[in-house]
Amino acid sequence: MTESVLDYMTRLGRAARAASRVAARASTAQKNRALLAAADALDAARAELSVANEQDLANGRANGLEPAMLDRLALTPERIDDMIEGLRQVATLPDPIGEIRDMRYLPSGIQVGKMRVPLGVIGIIYESRPNVTIDAASLCLKSGNATILRGGSEAIHSNQAIACCIQKGLADAGLPAELVQVVETTDRAAVGALISMPEYVDVIVPRGGKGLIERISREAKVPVIKHLDGICHVYIDVAADLDKAIRVADNAKTQRYAPCNTMETLLVHRGIAERVLPPLAAIYRDKGVELRGDADTRALLGGDVLAATEEDWRTEYNAPILSIRIVDDLDQAIQHINTYGSQHTDAIITENFSDARRFLTEVDSASVMVNASTRFADGFEYGLGAEIGISTDKLHARGPVGLEGLTSEKYVVFGDGHVRT
Amino acid sequence: MTESVLDYMTRLGRAARAASRVAARASTAQKNRALLAAADALDAARAELSVANEQDLANGRANGLEPAMLDRLALTPERIDDMIEGLRQVATLPDPIGEIRDMRYLPSGIQVGKMRVPLGVIGIIYESRPNVTIDAASLCLKSGNATILRGGSEAIHSNQAIACCIQKGLADAGLPAELVQVVETTDRAAVGALISMPEYVDVIVPRGGKGLIERISREAKVPVIKHLDGICHVYIDVAADLDKAIRVADNAKTQRYAPCNTMETLLVHRGIAERVLPPLAAIYRDKGVELRGDADTRALLGGDVLAATEEDWRTEYNAPILSIRIVDDLDQAIQHINTYGSQHTDAIITENFSDARRFLTEVDSASVMVNASTRFADGFEYGLGAEIGISTDKLHARGPVGLEGLTSEKYVVFGDGHVRT
Repeated sequence: MTESVLDYMTRLGRAARAASRVAARASTAQKNRALLAAADALDAARAELSVANEQDLANGRANGLEPAMLDRLALTPERIDDMIEGLRQVATLPDPIGEIRDMRYLPSGIQVGKMRVPLGVIGIIYESRPNVTIDAASLCLKSGNATILRGGSEAIHSNQAIACCIQKGLADAGLPAELVQVVETTDRAAVGALISMPEYVDVIVPRGGKGLIERISREAKVPVIKHLDGICHVYIDVAADLDKAIRVADNAKTQRYAPCNTMETLLVHRGIAERVLPPLAAIYRDKGVELRGDADTRALLGGDVLAATEEDWRTEYNAPILSIRIVDDLDQAIQHINTYGSQHTDAIITENFSDARRFLTEVDSASVMVNASTRFADGFEYGLGAEIGISTDKLHARGPVGLEGLTSEKYVVFGDGHVRT
Repeated sequence: MTESVLDYMTRLGRAARAASRVAARASTAQKNRALLAAADALDAARAELSVANEQDLANGRANGLEPAMLDRLALTPERIDDMIEGLRQVATLPDPIGEIRDMRYLPSGIQVGKMRVPLGVIGIIYESRPNVTIDAASLCLKSGNATILRGGSEAIHSNQAIACCIQKGLADAGLPAELVQVVETTDRAAVGALISMPEYVDVIVPRGGKGLIERISREAKVPVIKHLDGICHVYIDVAADLDKAIRVADNAKTQRYAPCNTMETLLVHRGIAERVLPPLAAIYRDKGVELRGDADTRALLGGDVLAATEEDWRTEYNAPILSIRIVDDLDQAIQHINTYGSQHTDAIITENFSDARRFLTEVDSASVMVNASTRFADGFEYGLGAEIGISTDKLHARGPVGLEGLTSEKYVVFGDGHVRT
């Protein structure tokens, strides 16, 4: 082929922009029909999906991919079930597009309000998990956006097989094929082109490791909705209920170690440390969690607790490791979180109303919680129905990003020949 | 002095970040007190303000500043009145911070909602108008943000005299001086530093000419809320009421020529052109508006209408010039606007419900209007109380940006020891 990668991506971008106009005015029924038809197409294409995925897995093995990577790449029957279920679930979500709020008369006589509208064209850049193709395509479609999907080169056959099912869904609903486009080249220059076309792409959502996200954020000429670190804290206040404190601090660390909303640092008020830390440490030790603490914590818990360094407070372990610090008061806890945290998710355990109120106001994170596990910070748990990611940005979407995060609002103004004087 | 510009700006940034924590938890009463005390301080400092401003004007004249620039720079008694009035008005606006919405129980038993919070630190970069110092500082303060203000070097004495009054207001309310900082160096490197400190600055709002805004957007490492072109359209539908069409199309162009929300292109349905264009052209000619039209318009209106080029459709004149095109139908009008417009403000004049509905849905602009003049696209007219600018971006704030555009929302989660299973 003689078309350059840049020309190819420009062609996709232009087609996506045109399709986005159609997506923006597609009816709810039409969008749902496409989602349900794509689900049926996936269900009917299980054999083809497995063949395509087996090809990716074989290439992966030949190229020496790590087992964890191969695991993420695998399209098991259960994962196909999940994709089908995901599509059907997104079809049941309320359509955010066209919602008008706060319409009111102003002194000049005009009526002004806000209407929820799609962002336009969304570029998704992700790594090995082929199911992201369905998650991203379904949320973008439901929110009236066109999307360009750039998955990992190691998943190219799986992604194309999935894309084929999405295309069937779009066709069934009479929607243009260019509404969901999967980049077909594995050339890395395609990513560079995708993030440099503000005229065709309104926002980029990178999904993957921190390295990928940092690189894209640095180089993009298009706004990026991004998720960086998840250094989450639980602070056990002096007025905490002991049972709740132990239950939440256990769950926040040990329910799963890898997620971004898992606790990495436990802060404990000096006045409750002697009562709460020994039983908690026993639980963590039982579960094989390595403990690192400040001097007071080590004095209290004994010699197997390593000394936590300045670096520990800034580290997202994503592993069975926990850093622990005893603080003098709520102020010091808030100060610690705002200094070392990543503005992701932080919780206070307390029965004291005023402490809870201060923590909610003063901790500058996307999710702040009282007496609940940080593990709840997730689009499904928050009732968004699905999420395209969790944003650690402050502008636009913050925290779990669902359909609403893929939309914008425009002003609508009604008059009766009104002019400005 | 031996401190480098970078060190100086880093110092401002660090101080702003620390002050932003105080601003975020300042009470509404405290913020209002600072605003009102600053207004009183301005009122008491009229003489000092005039002396400082005269110094800037003298320097400006010596440096050969253009008359329009000198005019923008001048702090007349009326402009000082406006600044004082502006501060008092912002004090009367409802405080957006801390508002909690959509709090509801989820199946797991947790309660989830969203709380409105400040963005943190806002950097404002502007040109010659010293009153922007007050507009920006008052809106940022009321919305609980710290701010770093970088005005034009030609207004440095005026800005510092104004800053002095703001400092009095902050001190009176017991708020830290670092909550509003005016950059004291005229070194251009200060701008480069300000837009490259994501650790200290959360968002940049540039106010000024397109050149300034484009440069800052290109170079910033911090998100930018920006306003580029205002290529606004009025489309006179075949079902328009003739009187309303003439009234609005006249007002949208001629009420003032310079603003960004002034109409630059008039689109007219072929079926109504013969009735509406000749009387409109008479009005425009009376007022000295130069007309440029497509072939059909020229055939209808006669020889003094210049031929509009492709370039005209893409031009923001900010002057008594209007381009006119006759279109076949609503589709062509929408297509024209989405192709050549700047997604700022566009209006349809029609009595037809379905045409209005389609225009509202399909025109992809920050403000879409029915039977009202584009000149209404403004924070005051929309009831925002004040505006820091008009955003032509889609992410985060779109259209006139008031207090709400300077805030974000975080998730708040309440539980009773809830854990994830």
